[in-house]
Amino acid sequence: MNKNVNIKNLIIEKPLKLDCGQTINNFPLAYETYGSLNSKQDNAILIFHALTGDQFVSGLNPITKKDGWWSYAVGPAKAVDTDKYFVICANVIGGCLGSFGPSMTNPATNKVYGTTFPIITINDMVNAQYNLLEFFKIEKLFAVIGGSMGGMQVLQFVSNFPNKAKIAIPIATTSNHSAQNIAFNELGRQSIMADTNWTNGDYSNQNKNPNKGLSVARMAAHITYLSKNGLQEKFGRKLQERDDLKFSFDADFQIESYLRYQGSVFVDRFDANSYLYITRAMDYFDLIKQHGGNLSKAFTDTKTKFLIISFTSDWLYPTSENKEIVIALNAIGADVGFVEIESDKGHDSFLLNTPNFLDTLKDYINTSYQNNK
Amino acid sequence: MNKNVNIKNLIIEKPLKLDCGQTINNFPLAYETYGSLNSKQDNAILIFHALTGDQFVSGLNPITKKDGWWSYAVGPAKAVDTDKYFVICANVIGGCLGSFGPSMTNPATNKVYGTTFPIITINDMVNAQYNLLEFFKIEKLFAVIGGSMGGMQVLQFVSNFPNKAKIAIPIATTSNHSAQNIAFNELGRQSIMADTNWTNGDYSNQNKNPNKGLSVARMAAHITYLSKNGLQEKFGRKLQERDDLKFSFDADFQIESYLRYQGSVFVDRFDANSYLYITRAMDYFDLIKQHGGNLSKAFTDTKTKFLIISFTSDWLYPTSENKEIVIALNAIGADVGFVEIESDKGHDSFLLNTPNFLDTLKDYINTSYQNNK
Repeated sequence: MNKNVNIKNLIIEKPLKLDCGQTINNFPLAYETYGSLNSKQDNAILIFHALTGDQFVSGLNPITKKDGWWSYAVGPAKAVDTDKYFVICANVIGGCLGSFGPSMTNPATNKVYGTTFPIITINDMVNAQYNLLEFFKIEKLFAVIGGSMGGMQVLQFVSNFPNKAKIAIPIATTSNHSAQNIAFNELGRQSIMADTNWTNGDYSNQNKNPNKGLSVARMAAHITYLSKNGLQEKFGRKLQERDDLKFSFDADFQIESYLRYQGSVFVDRFDANSYLYITRAMDYFDLIKQHGGNLSKAFTDTKTKFLIISFTSDWLYPTSENKEIVIALNAIGADVGFVEIESDKGHDSFLLNTPNFLDTLKDYINTSYQNNK
Repeated sequence: MNKNVNIKNLIIEKPLKLDCGQTINNFPLAYETYGSLNSKQDNAILIFHALTGDQFVSGLNPITKKDGWWSYAVGPAKAVDTDKYFVICANVIGGCLGSFGPSMTNPATNKVYGTTFPIITINDMVNAQYNLLEFFKIEKLFAVIGGSMGGMQVLQFVSNFPNKAKIAIPIATTSNHSAQNIAFNELGRQSIMADTNWTNGDYSNQNKNPNKGLSVARMAAHITYLSKNGLQEKFGRKLQERDDLKFSFDADFQIESYLRYQGSVFVDRFDANSYLYITRAMDYFDLIKQHGGNLSKAFTDTKTKFLIISFTSDWLYPTSENKEIVIALNAIGADVGFVEIESDKGHDSFLLNTPNFLDTLKDYINTSYQNNK
């Protein structure tokens, strides 16, 4: 990873008690902002990123030299209009783009933490990011928005801070991971741990890198981000730069090349231990269990207005799981809207150019802001 | 693998030209039989196994010391009644239980073939097994039956030998792999190849074993064999032998322990290179392409009677793909029945105790045999 990049960091001095029991303080939280906070301080939007996302939500990502991960949705005149709103996005703790994470050096030992880093949770991530409000002197956010693991953070944020966001938009998410979701994450973790270069998580201190295992983990995850029909339409059985089968283990089919490529580019920008920690946080997330088996209780005191968005072809966080959140909110008479967007692009729909989705997002945000005036 | 077991082998002397262009001869085909061939020789059933199956279809598997892989369906008084029928099942070529495969020693070099073994296809597997008819002096089989990759072999068998089986029962299968199926198989192959002990397939000659990679491959496949709902009902978010999260990377959830166990027991009975070769054969299988884009042409001359069976919760070979075969057979006026069995057990339904399925199979076989008298 190219570290010669300006990573903005907020050093959080205040102690944060993690769910695992450890307390951390004086730790960095890397963030980016887009647009300007207005004088009324009523136009701030906190965006939470997904598993492999980062703070570079829009514009050019200085690390990958590619567009930010949500450039379709965030930017001037986009659904989340940075000409109007002040957008903040932070790298989650446990991540690898400047926030406190397992690839950092432990000052006490002068060694990279690796798996001596504490297990973190979605709750810990959200509590760390809450410090951004104080830092930017924002009494109340206009919106909290996020897809996938970002959606989990949206739900946890509103649950923890029921009066700190006017609207909340959890997208393509769930209130807890199904057995199948845990299974796919465990598959990724096991493929990293199966790489002998992982060396029980100590690879950085030994100048090794479990790139092969991390690449396989990414391939596995990537399959779950796309729908069966979407894959079939895009790749089907098309062969890679040839007319007939090669009778070898080279990538004959385009889908094979595509997956290998996705794996290979991922290892340049992501840390294997961060992958372990963040997938663990997702699997541990259980807003239902946090509230004694009643999801509604997570939102009892909230005045936040919700829009829940799901996608027809998302089999990782299917509409049924998003609807459970809607049902829980309806049960306590919360202000909640729900839209299922028609798309064949699977879970990735929220990251891609999905016009119905982007229009829905834009309209809801702008109308809510207008009505709030 | 315990090799102190009596593996019955037929040595096939006749040259077999493989699809890759190579010709093989004097190669072993390991098989088992159950029941007795009657004097009219009209009660023989050839069963084809799936990816990780073998010839030990029923009774005790002498290698694993567990029940044969299709013990629910095959045996005395079972759906495939070995008191009535003479059941033959052979290990596919490319496999690792006695048939010609990559874990065998190449007599020319005195080294294990590894990836110098030729790429084989479903067509090659079926053509090799056809020699069993001559060996057992069977003019015409009563039935060819198989699920998953076994179903592909059923289809290929009838296509190659249109007058050699009275009935054919392809179960939970497809006429070619979708992009998603190829993707999951490629994931398995890449996880094996990512294991440094794979050593480009030469591990046996170097006294190494890519068990970690093979275990991850098995975990990935296993997830695809079960339905999301089935997993949720069986495991959900149940914790493994404790009441609360452990805040570590140990197996907290039962689904994690289950997958790790599935991976660990698999490596004791399966060869990593065989896994590569057989998944490759599945991905290459394309009965539509073999017949110029028209699946019906695969069956033009057949007098075989078909029953196609699919399962509601099978997302690996969904009902829609099984129906394509039905449609192709209907288009040429073939005798074809179709049943979709209600089950929440996913693709594995055909291997498990699924009463509706087993009853359907039994009735169809017995009625067909009776009508044929």
